[in-house]
Parts: sequence; C-alpha cells; structure tokens
Amino acid sequence: MTDSNKWYTQSGPDGDVVLSTRIRLARNFSDIPFVGRMTDAQKAQVEERVRDAVLNGNWALAGNFHYIDMEHCPHVQAVSLAERHLISPEFSQGAAGTALLLLEDESVSIMVNEEDHLRIQVMRPGLDLNEAYDTADKIDTLLDEKLNFAFHDRLGYLTQCPTNLGTGMRASVMLHLPALQELGSMNQLANTVAKLGLTIRGTYGEGSDAKGAVYQLSNQVTLGISEQAAIENLRSIAQQVIAQERNARKQLCADVRVQDRIWRSYGILTTARTLTVKEFTGLISNVRLGAATGILNIPMDVISRLLIDAMPGTMISQSKQELDAAKADLERARLVREALGANRP
Amino acid sequence: MTDSNKWYTQSGPDGDVVLSTRIRLARNFSDIPFVGRMTDAQKAQVEERVRDAVLNGNWALAGNFHYIDMEHCPHVQAVSLAERHLISPEFSQGAAGTALLLLEDESVSIMVNEEDHLRIQVMRPGLDLNEAYDTADKIDTLLDEKLNFAFHDRLGYLTQCPTNLGTGMRASVMLHLPALQELGSMNQLANTVAKLGLTIRGTYGEGSDAKGAVYQLSNQVTLGISEQAAIENLRSIAQQVIAQERNARKQLCADVRVQDRIWRSYGILTTARTLTVKEFTGLISNVRLGAATGILNIPMDVISRLLIDAMPGTMISQSKQELDAAKADLERARLVREALGANRP
Repeated sequence: MTDSNKWYTQSGPDGDVVLSTRIRLARNFSDIPFVGRMTDAQKAQVEERVRDAVLNGNWALAGNFHYIDMEHCPHVQAVSLAERHLISPEFSQGAAGTALLLLEDESVSIMVNEEDHLRIQVMRPGLDLNEAYDTADKIDTLLDEKLNFAFHDRLGYLTQCPTNLGTGMRASVMLHLPALQELGSMNQLANTVAKLGLTIRGTYGEGSDAKGAVYQLSNQVTLGISEQAAIENLRSIAQQVIAQERNARKQLCADVRVQDRIWRSYGILTTARTLTVKEFTGLISNVRLGAATGILNIPMDVISRLLIDAMPGTMISQSKQELDAAKADLERARLVREALGANRP
Repeated sequence: MTDSNKWYTQSGPDGDVVLSTRIRLARNFSDIPFVGRMTDAQKAQVEERVRDAVLNGNWALAGNFHYIDMEHCPHVQAVSLAERHLISPEFSQGAAGTALLLLEDESVSIMVNEEDHLRIQVMRPGLDLNEAYDTADKIDTLLDEKLNFAFHDRLGYLTQCPTNLGTGMRASVMLHLPALQELGSMNQLANTVAKLGLTIRGTYGEGSDAKGAVYQLSNQVTLGISEQAAIENLRSIAQQVIAQERNARKQLCADVRVQDRIWRSYGILTTARTLTVKEFTGLISNVRLGAATGILNIPMDVISRLLIDAMPGTMISQSKQELDAAKADLERARLVREALGANRP
C-alpha cells in the first residue's frame, strides 16, 4: 500500500467529482539549446544545475526532495511514477540524461530534460488551482533566481514546443465524469470547452471507451494570457462541468438499474479472485460513483488510494513477490478485496 | 420465507450433489375409466373417494393433510406448488375436477385426476430412496385397503399411459451437476444411463442451457421389474454419477478461474438490486457448488430454501405486496441478499 502521507491518498475540494489538480510549468535555460538539439554533455550540465539548485537550494523543501536518475530507474518503478502522474508516460522510457526530482509527499515533481529542460509540476487533491499555482510559482521564483530561465519580453517563457510559449503553464484538473459519459454528453462537452480555449480528454482511452470515466480538463492557451486569467478560466469551466456531472448523477442514480450496477461492481470487487486492470478500472469507477453519491458507504480516500495501488507498475513494484501477468491479476484481486474490506461470508 | 419444517429446507444424504429424492406411484380405480375418458361426475366421484380415504382414514397422518381444490386454486399458488415439485407443471393449470392432498411438511402429495386417478408422491432431501419408497409403499397399502386399486396379475398396476404399467412407479433423484455439465459430460452421461434403463434430463432447459445445472435422474422401466430392483438400479447409478461429479468438482475447483466465478456469483447475489429468475438460477448454482466444495462457508439449507423462495410463483404468493415482473426482480434481489447475509459495506 502507498504511504498515507502521499498527496493522492487525501481527498480535496469537490472531491466527489475532481480527483486532482495539476499545474505544470515548462522552463528552459537561456544559454543551452532546447532538449531536441542538446549534446549529452549539455544534458548532463542541465541535470547538474537543476539538481544542485533543488537539493542544495536555500529553501525549506531542499532536504525533502529525492533525486531519481531516470536512465537507471527500474522499468516498473518508472511505470509506477507515470501511473501516479508524477511523470509523463514518455518520460518513463528512461532516455539518457533524464532525471526526476521528487518531493517526499510527491506533490511536487521536476522532470529534467523531458520536452523542456525543466517541467515543474505541482499536484493537489481535488479542485485546488490557486494553492497548486501558488506552490508552483514559489518554486519557479526560487529556482529562477539561481537558474535564470529563458524569458522573452514579448513572448514570455521560451519553450521547445511553440504551443507552450508564453506562460509555459499547463493547468489541468482530473475529473471523474461517469454520469456525463453514460448520458453521452462527452462529445458535446469537448466541443464546448474547445471554444473556450480548453481541452478535455479521457485518460484511459477516448470517448465512450474511457472505462474509468476519468477525464483531464486543461488550458490550451499560453500566449497573450496571464497565469491568473488562464487559471480563472479553467476553474470557472471546471465548476460548470462539476455542476453538470452532479446533475447527471442525480438523474442517473435514481434509476435502480444504475444502483444495481454500482452495488454489483462493489460485490465483484470484494469477492473476485482474479482481476485485470481493465476490469478493475471499470468497476472501481462504478464504486467511486456509488461512494460519491452516498449509495455506498466507502471513504473516498480508500478509492483514491486503490486507483494508484492497483495499477500494474505500482502493484508490481510494491509487491514482495515476482508477478507475471496472471499472478498480478490474483494479487490485484487480493489487494482490492482487502482495501474494500471484504469479509468471508 | 418458507417454514423451516418443510422437507426441502433440510439437507439429506449426499446433499453436496443430491437435492432430493422422489417416489411417485400411479394408481387407478378398477371400476372407473381412466382420466382421459371420465365424465365430470366420475371425476367428482374419484375426488370424493380419495379425499375421504386420506382425510378420514384410520392412520396417523390423516389430520395432517390439506385438501386443495386445484380448479379454484389461485394461479400463483399453483405455480408455487409446481416450483416446489409437489405437482406437475401441467397440473398447475387447474383443470376441472383436479385436486391435491398435501401433507403439512409437503413431503407427501397426492394428485387426484392428473394423468391417473391418483399420483402418490413422496419427497425426501438428499439421496434417500429406501426411506422415500417405504413411506410411499405404506401410504399405497393403506389407501389400497379402502380404494381397491386396479391391478392385473400379469401386468401389475394398470395406468392410463402404458409406459407406467407394472409397478406404476417413477423413482427419481434431483442432482446438481455443475462440474459434469461444465466439462461437457452430460450428453455422454445421458447415453450411458439410457442403456441402463434410466433417463437424465435438465430441469431448467436441456443440455448446456441447463442454467441451474439441476438434472433429474429417473427409472424408465416399470414392467417386468420389482420396485426394489428398480430402486436398487437407480441408487447404484446415482452413486456412480455422484462420484463422477465429485471428481469433476475436484478438478474444476482447483482452477482459480472457477473459484473466481464462484466468489463473484456470491458477490453479485449479495449486492444486486434487481435479479431475474434466470440470472439467479445461474448464480445460485455457482454458489451451491462453492458451498458444497467448501470454497464458500454457506449452509446448504440456506441455498435449498432460496432455490424455492426465489422462484416466481412462490415469491409472489408469499409477498405482502402486489408484484409485477420488474418489482419481482427487485424483491428477489432483496430476498436473496437477506438470505445470504449481505452487510452494507
């Protein structure tokens, strides 16, 4: 099981719908080429500078960061980091010269030599954009004093990909939208938010295939807009989506067939002896809907933790035994039964 | 819920595989035509004679029989009687001049003017052919003294249908054969027992469609064989089938996928909010297999009782509210959850 001091084992504001909030800042050194054009020596130089600034910086958090050399990180651990959204899936490949600086509670992670020299990422449970942005901003300011990030008076922060130019900020919220998905509202919602400068996409597959019904809503515009304005726009639209999802849930959960499905999902999760990650993802989504609407009396943090612990990389890297695919499905079933408090009849 | 003094709420010998044993004797009066050729007056005469012999007979059980006029019996109650195997499905149609005499614990039922003037039926839980036959024989002897059944020195008891001529006895055992069914052994088994003068058939549909995996094994030969020999033949073959089923279960239940299915079936039955009789039949069969093999710690009598209580006619006739099909599925789910001891998480 994951440690209970990790940020994602807690529930946050609007936690019935919002899993988490993320702020990601793309930053680059002005005196070194972008990642796509760097030499190995330059990669090492970037890594050295960032490592020194973070670990030996004159700030309270310095002692609480871990340094992870991604090139030599065991694959399952790297996959587990991606499952916890601490790194991008591509970053888990462990390319030469890549590294991660990770705060102990995992709420702050800094990818080094991903698409940009630095990707500073702050995570918070629930809808908590201001808090997440404040932390990201403070870290950015402290590091900027030492590292002197590339900044253009007219363009703002310079980034390898032009779509990040300006604020270099990507703000996003992870939403659990089982009701809107079931009512077939996702396509229309995607069109609507696109017109407002946002994007929404499934995190476990697109459209109705999004088994877990988890969607990421994020800003697209980084140029000609302030960080505060971008965040305000995202929060405002997120709140409308949250309200829509709550209405849809009310409508849906009055139906005994939906209650039935929620209860059966709980029944299966507390009894199954083998469980693929795909099936788990669908069933836990139903159970989360049940817990969020009061149909099931299960604390949300139990579910949040399971959403991490039952993922393949995290499960395998935390297991005391060697797990092949078949054994992993047995172990997943055991872990889920235990977490949801199944009792032998 | 059914009363706990009913015979089918108990478990009997070899109860892991055998649900029940039934002896049925076909008897006719010698001075009245067979049912197919009777007048209404003659039907009434038969009914009157049997009723008087049973209810006012000089025997210990006389006071414990109930008389049910099938023609005026409410349809759901008649269906419920058929679900409890106390009458044949055809008899539940309530044709004019038909009646049932039913012992309080429902272990003895006498159908009047079904295919024969009398069909004396004795039921026992588990494999208990001797006990069932002894009881049937005693009742037959007592009634014969008063009623003088049609008997031919060479042919034996005369019956309307020639296939019952001779002993007039049909002995049968209800077997739960989920493992043999799953291993695809039922067709071969049917061929084998046919050569030995027996027949085996699914009670909820034929072949692999037999959702509940409940099969009736019964004797076919009534002419040129004594009752004792017929019963001995049936018992001997039943015991071989039981042994085969137990072996098949051992093989099957070592497979975690089968354990998984058994547990999930239990999980669904203890949580579902709506449950059709078809789905229930399949799931309770898995749960019964689990209980019989020690995978689930559920008393067999809880399951035996549910197999009756959750059937449509019995459920509707025992319910305090009016039940349409949709409401019946809700009520069935509630009843099953309660019986299997589900707790809210």
